[in-house]
Amino acid sequence: MTAINMLRLDNSNPDFERDLQQRLAWDASDDLDIHQRVLEIIANVRKSGDQALIDYSNRFDRTDFKAAAELELSPAALKQAWDSLPEAQAQALQTAAERVRSYAEHQKMQSWQFTEADGTVLGQKVTPLDKAGLYVPGGKASYPSSVLMNAIPAKVAGVGELIMVVPTPDGETNAMVLAAAYIAGVDRVFTIGGAQAVAALAYGTETIPAVDKIVGPGNIYVATAKKLVFGQVGIDMIAGPSEILIICDGQTNPDWIAMDLFSQAEHDENAQSILISDNAEFLDQVEASINKLLPDMERADIIRASMTGRGAFIKVNNLSEATEVANRIAPEHLELSVADPEALAAQIRNAGAIFMGRYTAEALGDYCAGPNHVLPTSSTARYSSPLGVYDFQKRSSLINCSAAGASELGKIASVLARGESLTAHARSAEYRI
Amino acid sequence: MTAINMLRLDNSNPDFERDLQQRLAWDASDDLDIHQRVLEIIANVRKSGDQALIDYSNRFDRTDFKAAAELELSPAALKQAWDSLPEAQAQALQTAAERVRSYAEHQKMQSWQFTEADGTVLGQKVTPLDKAGLYVPGGKASYPSSVLMNAIPAKVAGVGELIMVVPTPDGETNAMVLAAAYIAGVDRVFTIGGAQAVAALAYGTETIPAVDKIVGPGNIYVATAKKLVFGQVGIDMIAGPSEILIICDGQTNPDWIAMDLFSQAEHDENAQSILISDNAEFLDQVEASINKLLPDMERADIIRASMTGRGAFIKVNNLSEATEVANRIAPEHLELSVADPEALAAQIRNAGAIFMGRYTAEALGDYCAGPNHVLPTSSTARYSSPLGVYDFQKRSSLINCSAAGASELGKIASVLARGESLTAHARSAEYRI
Repeated sequence: MTAINMLRLDNSNPDFERDLQQRLAWDASDDLDIHQRVLEIIANVRKSGDQALIDYSNRFDRTDFKAAAELELSPAALKQAWDSLPEAQAQALQTAAERVRSYAEHQKMQSWQFTEADGTVLGQKVTPLDKAGLYVPGGKASYPSSVLMNAIPAKVAGVGELIMVVPTPDGETNAMVLAAAYIAGVDRVFTIGGAQAVAALAYGTETIPAVDKIVGPGNIYVATAKKLVFGQVGIDMIAGPSEILIICDGQTNPDWIAMDLFSQAEHDENAQSILISDNAEFLDQVEASINKLLPDMERADIIRASMTGRGAFIKVNNLSEATEVANRIAPEHLELSVADPEALAAQIRNAGAIFMGRYTAEALGDYCAGPNHVLPTSSTARYSSPLGVYDFQKRSSLINCSAAGASELGKIASVLARGESLTAHARSAEYRI
Repeated sequence: MTAINMLRLDNSNPDFERDLQQRLAWDASDDLDIHQRVLEIIANVRKSGDQALIDYSNRFDRTDFKAAAELELSPAALKQAWDSLPEAQAQALQTAAERVRSYAEHQKMQSWQFTEADGTVLGQKVTPLDKAGLYVPGGKASYPSSVLMNAIPAKVAGVGELIMVVPTPDGETNAMVLAAAYIAGVDRVFTIGGAQAVAALAYGTETIPAVDKIVGPGNIYVATAKKLVFGQVGIDMIAGPSEILIICDGQTNPDWIAMDLFSQAEHDENAQSILISDNAEFLDQVEASINKLLPDMERADIIRASMTGRGAFIKVNNLSEATEVANRIAPEHLELSVADPEALAAQIRNAGAIFMGRYTAEALGDYCAGPNHVLPTSSTARYSSPLGVYDFQKRSSLINCSAAGASELGKIASVLARGESLTAHARSAEYRI
């Protein structure tokens, strides 16, 4: 095998900004052909309901469904999946679920209100969504950790009914995924997938209840369907390829850093692993570790493609410059593998999750540290947040004017409404003066 | 003029659900022709920068810009607009701004963290957006109240730079809009509009800085441009027609209720005003008030079109049923014009803003009560919230594992990662055991 030579960038190079942007560039443009096929699937599900789901599943997932009742997994089937899990897996899943739940509890928004001197009450009422839908991919990309990360915040928020859909290609189910659904408290599970499952959750069928929001990862058909039903229902983010940015002062074991970079790179060929250091020699050491460790990796081909196609090593003059580069990149995962991670974290504004210190491998956050592993990608951490309990809650403003309050506010509203030539607004306010 | 006969629905009618859905239906489907033209404008702005902005403005807004420097309004111009405002308007604007700011302060999210027994620290860091863009329509639809409602939450959040764009059709500016920008603390104002202004804010030009999120109302070109740049930047909601739902026990002056319905209807012909009552006679009284008051309204034609085309009166058996209908409609504005609004509000799950009691006209909320007037429309209150400070903040997860913590978590992560066949994840975690 030829050795990997990482792309090297240096922020003191005048072309650095251009070269960095080129490396970060990610074309997420829509495929019009897929768009058209998904529109058709949505229209069919809206028209034919359960029958469309049965037909699409039998065709795409090679299942043999005959009646809509077969589309739902019984609660007993979920419990059985949990009961039959090997002890080590059950314990790991349980501990992970408990930690995710415990962290999520801190995110729960509360209603508030206050009373003004004249008796007028203002506030904000927080309520959970009535119903949420959780998409879980089938087959090889089916991750129990993802079930925990999406389902637990919904349940902590108090969502009335959490409905999971997961396809069963060739009729096969994934026991660990069903076990995760069981301990996360998913209310109902249907064995459908693809764009047709998204359409069913958005619009409802005879058997599948319509939900208020759909979350969870999926392939390009699922992502396209989510975009197309947005408005009819809420959706979570549309995820791009996974990313890690590591800032290291050169004092961490280079094997650890190489493996941390691999842990993103193994996701897929478009995943992006970037290392920033003020120590050029350390960058060489990590490259040597990469080439030493790669041959042993199960997903060596994917890692190689990702590291050479989208990875980068960036040399900076000092760690403060490294934080500025990180803020511009706004990575999904940011590892601060340095002696004083608090000092650097204070300078970070844009990142999905910040992993502080040499011991905090990003992989710990993927499974069991507690914070959510569903994070903003492709620089969207500049304006968006990790998936959380707040994504399953909404706010309503509360306004309760006393007679005295309405009289005072009515005068102000009248002036401003007339300034905007909205006289019905003005007269409605003036009635209360 | 022919009298208005409001569409009457009754929730004890077996066809009620179907008839209600028919009345609520709103086709927000994209216009492909507009889509195409907007894509072209965005591409041109990305390619030609300032020159494209100058050309489009001169063509669409009939301005006479020659150089990019002319696109920015000076801080002195904003101050002058404020200084020259008539006293009554200045005072009304100032009080409204103070009340909006005071309410918004309650929404500000704070960072938090906690330490576990083994020294591991978990938390969530909250930061404001670096830069935000505010679109303000020009001409007749230019509302100073909208400037306050969009700009103040951004400034309370601590956004680094708030950049407003407002077109100047035929070179005309709106003094009250500029005065509102002045007291809201907008940092820079550019006199551009349309899809080209959205493109400039999303991608930046030589003169216009690229922002992280774009908020504010606009016509179909602006809304389409916002949808198309989403991902490159964040956007607020895409607003549908304005809506009010009033639940009344029949004891409020029917003229007040009629005028409250008008205050939405006057926005545009697609606005939706619905009244629910358990008192059929009261519905007749409000209809009589509508026909009595309509001829005097400045926007009588718009109100008539809206009330007859999209309005409705719904008769229910009791007020508890009324709240269930309201939850299904999930209105932008909900007025509880009843003796005990707290009792009804407790049953409401889906509404953008709840106006409680006979004195709390919705119009007070539009201008000066304090809560934001940018609210979820078209039933999206089922899963989304009023615009608020939180829309200009974002969260980053914090994870700082102690050596002991990483060792324990590493074991769990290893089991789960191997269960998902992600061995680089497993080995990265195992290094820390």
